[in-house]
Amino acid sequence: MSKRNLYLSNTPAEEALVRFQAALKPHIAVKRENISAVDALGRVTGQAVFARYNSPLYNCAAMDGVAVVCQNTRGASESNPLTLREGEDFLPVDTGDPIRPPYDGVIMAEELTQVEDGGVAIRAAAAPWQHVRPVGEDIVAGEMILPAGHTVRPIDVGVLLSGGAAELSVRAKSTVAILPTGTEMIELGDEIGEDSIVESNSRMFEGLVRQGGGDPTRFSPTPDEYDQLKSALQKAVRDFDMVLMIAGTSAGREDFTVHLLRELGEVVVHGVAIKPGKPVILAVVDGKPVIGLPGYPVSAYLAYQNFVAPILSELTGRTQEDLPAVKATLTRSLVSSLKHREYVRVKVGKVGDRLIASPLARGAGAAMSLVRADGFCLIDQDVEGVEAGAQVDVLLSRGLSGLERTVVSIGSHDLILDILADLMPEISGGAGLSSAHVGSMGGLLALKNGECHIAPYHLLDEASGEYNLPYLKRLFIGEGMALIKGVGRVQGIMVQKGNPLGVSEIEDLPRCSYINRQRGAGTRLLLDYKLKTLGIDPGEISGYSREAATHMAVAAAVREGGAQAGLGVLSAAKAMGLDFIPIGEEEYDFAIRAEFLELPHICAFIAALKDARFHERLDELGGYTIRSAGEVIRVDC
Amino acid sequence: MSKRNLYLSNTPAEEALVRFQAALKPHIAVKRENISAVDALGRVTGQAVFARYNSPLYNCAAMDGVAVVCQNTRGASESNPLTLREGEDFLPVDTGDPIRPPYDGVIMAEELTQVEDGGVAIRAAAAPWQHVRPVGEDIVAGEMILPAGHTVRPIDVGVLLSGGAAELSVRAKSTVAILPTGTEMIELGDEIGEDSIVESNSRMFEGLVRQGGGDPTRFSPTPDEYDQLKSALQKAVRDFDMVLMIAGTSAGREDFTVHLLRELGEVVVHGVAIKPGKPVILAVVDGKPVIGLPGYPVSAYLAYQNFVAPILSELTGRTQEDLPAVKATLTRSLVSSLKHREYVRVKVGKVGDRLIASPLARGAGAAMSLVRADGFCLIDQDVEGVEAGAQVDVLLSRGLSGLERTVVSIGSHDLILDILADLMPEISGGAGLSSAHVGSMGGLLALKNGECHIAPYHLLDEASGEYNLPYLKRLFIGEGMALIKGVGRVQGIMVQKGNPLGVSEIEDLPRCSYINRQRGAGTRLLLDYKLKTLGIDPGEISGYSREAATHMAVAAAVREGGAQAGLGVLSAAKAMGLDFIPIGEEEYDFAIRAEFLELPHICAFIAALKDARFHERLDELGGYTIRSAGEVIRVDC
Repeated sequence: MSKRNLYLSNTPAEEALVRFQAALKPHIAVKRENISAVDALGRVTGQAVFARYNSPLYNCAAMDGVAVVCQNTRGASESNPLTLREGEDFLPVDTGDPIRPPYDGVIMAEELTQVEDGGVAIRAAAAPWQHVRPVGEDIVAGEMILPAGHTVRPIDVGVLLSGGAAELSVRAKSTVAILPTGTEMIELGDEIGEDSIVESNSRMFEGLVRQGGGDPTRFSPTPDEYDQLKSALQKAVRDFDMVLMIAGTSAGREDFTVHLLRELGEVVVHGVAIKPGKPVILAVVDGKPVIGLPGYPVSAYLAYQNFVAPILSELTGRTQEDLPAVKATLTRSLVSSLKHREYVRVKVGKVGDRLIASPLARGAGAAMSLVRADGFCLIDQDVEGVEAGAQVDVLLSRGLSGLERTVVSIGSHDLILDILADLMPEISGGAGLSSAHVGSMGGLLALKNGECHIAPYHLLDEASGEYNLPYLKRLFIGEGMALIKGVGRVQGIMVQKGNPLGVSEIEDLPRCSYINRQRGAGTRLLLDYKLKTLGIDPGEISGYSREAATHMAVAAAVREGGAQAGLGVLSAAKAMGLDFIPIGEEEYDFAIRAEFLELPHICAFIAALKDARFHERLDELGGYTIRSAGEVIRVDC
Repeated sequence: MSKRNLYLSNTPAEEALVRFQAALKPHIAVKRENISAVDALGRVTGQAVFARYNSPLYNCAAMDGVAVVCQNTRGASESNPLTLREGEDFLPVDTGDPIRPPYDGVIMAEELTQVEDGGVAIRAAAAPWQHVRPVGEDIVAGEMILPAGHTVRPIDVGVLLSGGAAELSVRAKSTVAILPTGTEMIELGDEIGEDSIVESNSRMFEGLVRQGGGDPTRFSPTPDEYDQLKSALQKAVRDFDMVLMIAGTSAGREDFTVHLLRELGEVVVHGVAIKPGKPVILAVVDGKPVIGLPGYPVSAYLAYQNFVAPILSELTGRTQEDLPAVKATLTRSLVSSLKHREYVRVKVGKVGDRLIASPLARGAGAAMSLVRADGFCLIDQDVEGVEAGAQVDVLLSRGLSGLERTVVSIGSHDLILDILADLMPEISGGAGLSSAHVGSMGGLLALKNGECHIAPYHLLDEASGEYNLPYLKRLFIGEGMALIKGVGRVQGIMVQKGNPLGVSEIEDLPRCSYINRQRGAGTRLLLDYKLKTLGIDPGEISGYSREAATHMAVAAAVREGGAQAGLGVLSAAKAMGLDFIPIGEEEYDFAIRAEFLELPHICAFIAALKDARFHERLDELGGYTIRSAGEVIRVDC
């Protein structure tokens, strides 16, 4: 086997950044340009901007009415009104009209009585300068409007114009080259082959750079060939202020990036103590920052936020806003290594008075966990883990107000949750649904612990043959609960297209390699119940201990040949093009505390269950029956 | 006099919005378009987006190492290593490489020992599927990636590509016409005349619309001529989704907007109970929302936020994020009318453990108050006022983290505060200076009340003839205080260019119309001291009771002829092109509690006082002496 870079350093993130900034410091020069104020939105001021004009530019009327010479209004009173003549005693003025000598006050239109011949009567004297905006009241010529380093907002543009600052100095846009690498990478629109991947990380970086005030330029993916990588990098360093190289930063056989950067410049850090995101390279080539970023999307994102964002912020002069931190209750225990600081993506919701944080998938490749996340729970390097129920700091990537209108669902997974999440905002602006998938029993326990609003579940009571209600009564003794009826759902055995093994019933499972659901999942309990009824020992089923967290994950494993059979719902089988052998219909409902039923977002959830659009989409999917969706059964347990 | 629209309604903002939304409801249709995922940043999904591919697309290596057939590794142990041959027993793989049958597991590179002939030795058996990312582990084909109504972020773009959603449906961009009106309005770059104003509100609206996800088109200002306004409005309504008309919404003689809107469509609301922002018109013309906005910049801004932003959010489908609310201590009492809800702009700072909110100028024309503001303190319609020291809710327009690095200064005004505010972020990234101007004595009281970090002041002790320190000792008995030395400052009489009245000393003031500073200002105390010494009664000075809050405001009033003389500093006189008669030098220093001296942003402030760039800029201004700027004198009072 060829040589690998097995040994990355494990530098703490703060130290890595400080070392990188120190290495860059001699090279970074601020570039500025002059632009028109009307083009300045979002730009960063390069120098303080001072007003050239006063605003208002002249003394002017602050109200609609008449301009008067105040001295001439003396003696007017309720009992002794004074009549003024237009042109002699007053000038009609609207707000903003100039007030020039001899006029030195304004009487509001509301206080005037019209008299004959276009005159007006007043019933009180005017005090000098009343209802007059003095010149420069708002902005005084010479005053600083904006300091240096300020990101220009819409209101600033207006004030720059009012103050006569038609042009201003701003920081030049920082240009960032984004170089994806990898022989397996193809472009969007190319034919997908057996071993190819549509390159996507660079597109995420384009957006992040743009949002950070930089000017990104994406290169086409460069194959893992030393000379090609070298010439792409040299071009990028020559023409841009900063370079991001994607992938090739770990210890793989074709990971040339670090060798290349050592040849062309100085590698300041290779490997940092964060997870995901360890294999980062911080280098300086010809005085320019070159950052090698890992290829796994979550690692790439976190390495960007930790290292690219602060350097870009120095280049652009734009202040980096920290994510707002909140305290939240953790729903599951987290174990973490002492080797690094871990960024756990969490869903956050407000249940009662508490913010609740539910950890999402932790893998570096779990890009969907970033899409779904409402924030990050940081586990510091010196912490081995956090217990369920602990208060943790969560850095929010989403506004709190949205979180307060979100139904928190923890429990069994079904595609209908996606459809409901999609419909709810339309039904009630801002209402949302956030769901974590831990199986039926896990959901009921979360509800018990006050960690969610609703728990979707499908649990067969062996004694009564009834679904769901018996579990609610048994688990929530003495509490005011309710069941929101969901859908009827056909469960069955999913097998590969054409059913090559000729599976037709549960008894056939011992001849297949099986993929199971996780403990506590209703589908797994259904299997266990059927096996028990039939007298089959779970040990006879190969793969019984291999767990997947969702119906779709089971279906995907069957389609790709990782397993030959799995239990799940028709919709998942259809989505994956599998054959489906029905073994029964079950009831998929939602447990809820009665006190939550009046919340506006729960009302929106119930309305979505009853909505015709929801029913149409279930019809398209197939495998569901809708008898009493949205019906609420109150249960005093 | 011609007819005016004197009577606006006083509809509460919420009711006005609900009525407007109801009137628009039958007319608003969602428009969608398909675009490439790579162009989707910031767009709002028109429909839910589902994955077309699995990600990973195939079972693949999760680590760098070798792919093995797990069954063939059985029996390997520390005491009994097993040797594997490349091609026969293993395939070298890098992270992401496909794992195909018969291979069903990966052993990490770190766990391999190289042996002769390119073989490797292993010391443990591999468990089936170890270090293999199963197909669809991250994204399963058919799964929802994004719900409808989601604003696409950088990470979403990456995941859309990974999941094969190369195209997606997004809401079409909502087009917004912005029509400034007013005969006095000129364009940027035109010659400024006597009665003309550079039109600027439309530029603020352009930015706000753009930030709200709309597509703004600005019209050139239309003069106040009915037929011209009518044809501009008709064109705008025909070609755009929404129309904003600026100014012409109040009760002025030329305020045609409401008549025009009544002729062409339906005026739903005219006049709302918010301040600033009352004269708003909400109208529907040909099924399109047309909003008439007031001309005062603060009114315009608040009317936009209350009415345009929510309607634009309905059109674009983009969720409006509420401003984050915090509790803060109010530094001054606020009296407000029961006629409306008032939006008071406030500076916010963190002093000790408390957030402190200092009200800024409250006028509708005070656009600089919006530029300076960190947030809004809302005084509800049913509240007559709020006492100083009360806890109030502040809606923050700026991030909390920035506020925590900001030096809060309350006290006497000087231009050097602008210069320091400009320098500090350069000296220490993120450090800022926020200053409120209430005069010397007001600042010391604020410091006493724990409402600021530093109080800039210049107070002459009549008994000792010494500046500043005596006041500190007298006011803070028993407390650990310090004085940060500032600058020496020449005070003098400012008169119009050429000194037409021949003013040469304080004794000449009774022959001038004067403009004074507010009570508690050091400059006013200096005047009072001089008058007392000279035996002049303040009543002899015409305009003694006319107050301005800053040196620059005094200078502006003198320049524009509102007054003939005023006391102030040389820099202000120079900025306004006035003549200046020196009457003495005073010391302008900063009082601080000793406990604050170690704060990083205070250190940055002191560093700025000592910085050569600061001294250079003072030299340019003139009128200052720099002997011991930045020196700290600790005082145990």
